Amino acid sequence: MTSDDLLPKIDRRTLVSGLALLPTAGSLIPTSARAQIASPAPLASWNDGPAKQAIVDFVRATTDQSSPKYVAREDRIVCFDQDGTLWVEKPIYTQVLYCLDRVPAVVAQRPELKNREPFKTVMSGDKAAIAALPLPALEEILAATLTGMSVETFEADVAKWLDAAKHPRWNRLYTDLIYQPMTEVLQFMRDAGYKTYIVTGGGQDFVRVYAQRVYGIPPEQVVGTMGGVKFGYAKDGKPFLTKEPKLLLNDDHAGKPQGIHLMIGRQPRAAFGNSVGDRQMLEYTGAGGGARLMMLVLHDDAQHEYAYGPASGLPSSKVGTFTQALYDEAKRDGWTVISMKNDWKRIFAFD
Amino acid sequence: MTSDDLLPKIDRRTLVSGLALLPTAGSLIPTSARAQIASPAPLASWNDGPAKQAIVDFVRATTDQSSPKYVAREDRIVCFDQDGTLWVEKPIYTQVLYCLDRVPAVVAQRPELKNREPFKTVMSGDKAAIAALPLPALEEILAATLTGMSVETFEADVAKWLDAAKHPRWNRLYTDLIYQPMTEVLQFMRDAGYKTYIVTGGGQDFVRVYAQRVYGIPPEQVVGTMGGVKFGYAKDGKPFLTKEPKLLLNDDHAGKPQGIHLMIGRQPRAAFGNSVGDRQMLEYTGAGGGARLMMLVLHDDAQHEYAYGPASGLPSSKVGTFTQALYDEAKRDGWTVISMKNDWKRIFAFD
Repeated sequence: MTSDDLLPKIDRRTLVSGLALLPTAGSLIPTSARAQIASPAPLASWNDGPAKQAIVDFVRATTDQSSPKYVAREDRIVCFDQDGTLWVEKPIYTQVLYCLDRVPAVVAQRPELKNREPFKTVMSGDKAAIAALPLPALEEILAATLTGMSVETFEADVAKWLDAAKHPRWNRLYTDLIYQPMTEVLQFMRDAGYKTYIVTGGGQDFVRVYAQRVYGIPPEQVVGTMGGVKFGYAKDGKPFLTKEPKLLLNDDHAGKPQGIHLMIGRQPRAAFGNSVGDRQMLEYTGAGGGARLMMLVLHDDAQHEYAYGPASGLPSSKVGTFTQALYDEAKRDGWTVISMKNDWKRIFAFD
Repeated sequence: MTSDDLLPKIDRRTLVSGLALLPTAGSLIPTSARAQIASPAPLASWNDGPAKQAIVDFVRATTDQSSPKYVAREDRIVCFDQDGTLWVEKPIYTQVLYCLDRVPAVVAQRPELKNREPFKTVMSGDKAAIAALPLPALEEILAATLTGMSVETFEADVAKWLDAAKHPRWNRLYTDLIYQPMTEVLQFMRDAGYKTYIVTGGGQDFVRVYAQRVYGIPPEQVVGTMGGVKFGYAKDGKPFLTKEPKLLLNDDHAGKPQGIHLMIGRQPRAAFGNSVGDRQMLEYTGAGGGARLMMLVLHDDAQHEYAYGPASGLPSSKVGTFTQALYDEAKRDGWTVISMKNDWKRIFAFD
């Protein structure tokens, strides 16, 4: 088994402008009694409209015991893609930036890599050359920087990086760049008894480092691309786990329903995504009986975030993994598209 | 990747007699306030003694906010081996019996197997010959009977079998043969805010079929030997998952801490096991800081269940995976041994 596809494909399309949306005050909406108690103003960053209504209607129908669409509490499972659905994925996946930043430390430990590509290019600091690295080179960097250390060492290093690294556009921590309306959905659905899962193409161990703090999602509810670990003993006899460059599951595309089966063991009732990597997860969610909610985040707010995919203004052959075909499928199958520009009052908590 | 080790090793030791233990009425014990509210008589099937005391002390210390050993609610994770820890594993693992019983259906679908070993032997009904099948033959049977169908078909078939198949000794459903004192531990720890997991060498998908109903443990809290699934579409376009003969993780021995990391993402606070297959899980649990509880079920009640391992009366070279060395490690590392004969008032709910 190789480390191919240990991380999802990299995407670097040109960013185009969109219209502005000024944040306004939140408005109260009717919700189930349980949600009202825990969150007096749920979905406060959402404008009234079909997207917000779809979420509210679904939660109301599935938690009202008198509803024909009622779902027992133990079956209330909702899955969220992360990159581009819960937080910013542009200009490049945060985890890839972490891996690039870790290269100097890896080279210090393994000096033989210093003059070997692609490590040499990364060490040069030449941003244009780094951005031009082909996918296999990036995968080599991911394998070298995400494996070979103990689980604890990895977690500590990621946590340290997240406390310091900043996004070039906003000059803010990456964990500040989570979508405020989506954190409200997470809370709204948890208040209604839903178990919230992240189902990401990103590394499961990477996302687990901050998922509890940032999203309120515990490690066991993070489903991601999974690598093997090796059990061994330290010199003092204490057992520990080492991260290995062995892919167990690439949790993207068809891997998402596979990961859901592996980690959760049943079809989710609701799923949120934003790219073709989420297509099979949304289809799998929709294939179950009873009430189901499938939602697709459309990035169409270039002023406050980015505009890409169908909202990029690019010809369909250039929109990469956010294809018009996906939005056509959404329309055909009753998925709801969330327009960041029209459905959200603000993108970030700091807006 | 092969289907080797898709299921744990088979164990068929001679069963020897032990002393009887007559069930008596339960007694109230002091517990934390929270546990008292939910379960007025927790651990009612346990005799007073060091094993019961270890459980009560651990739960009290880790749930009392004034205790130096207090554990935050989100970190309260406890893992239970299944076969021999939560239910009967003799004379043979229940899942293996399911697989043997499924052979005729598989042969009916794939007639070319009829005259091929080991299927021919299973079809002959010759119990002695079946019992003598070597491990590779059994593994071939497991792969043929546990894979190739949709997840839904598999679940329905297992459920149907469990509703009918009976244990030869008690003439009862296998799901009746769960240890009543252990179901009380599950409930007692859940009442104290612990998330209860099964961590089994058995098939994850197999155990999930009945874990909620029998143990109150939902599918996502069953960690077992994991096989791959394939995503595809039915003729009507509906997506579904097919079980594949591809091993992702053999959740036994060192695979148990690996499976725990994969599925839970942190070290458990407590773990219960009964064989060398649980050794690494118990060691891994003990390696964490703060309060930890490691317990080992000793099968020493031949009259009400079985006596094997150190209680079998056999020389150490003959006790298979329930070695004296494991009990020596338990003593050295502060694990608590549960004597089924002395610590339990009854084995089964029907006793």
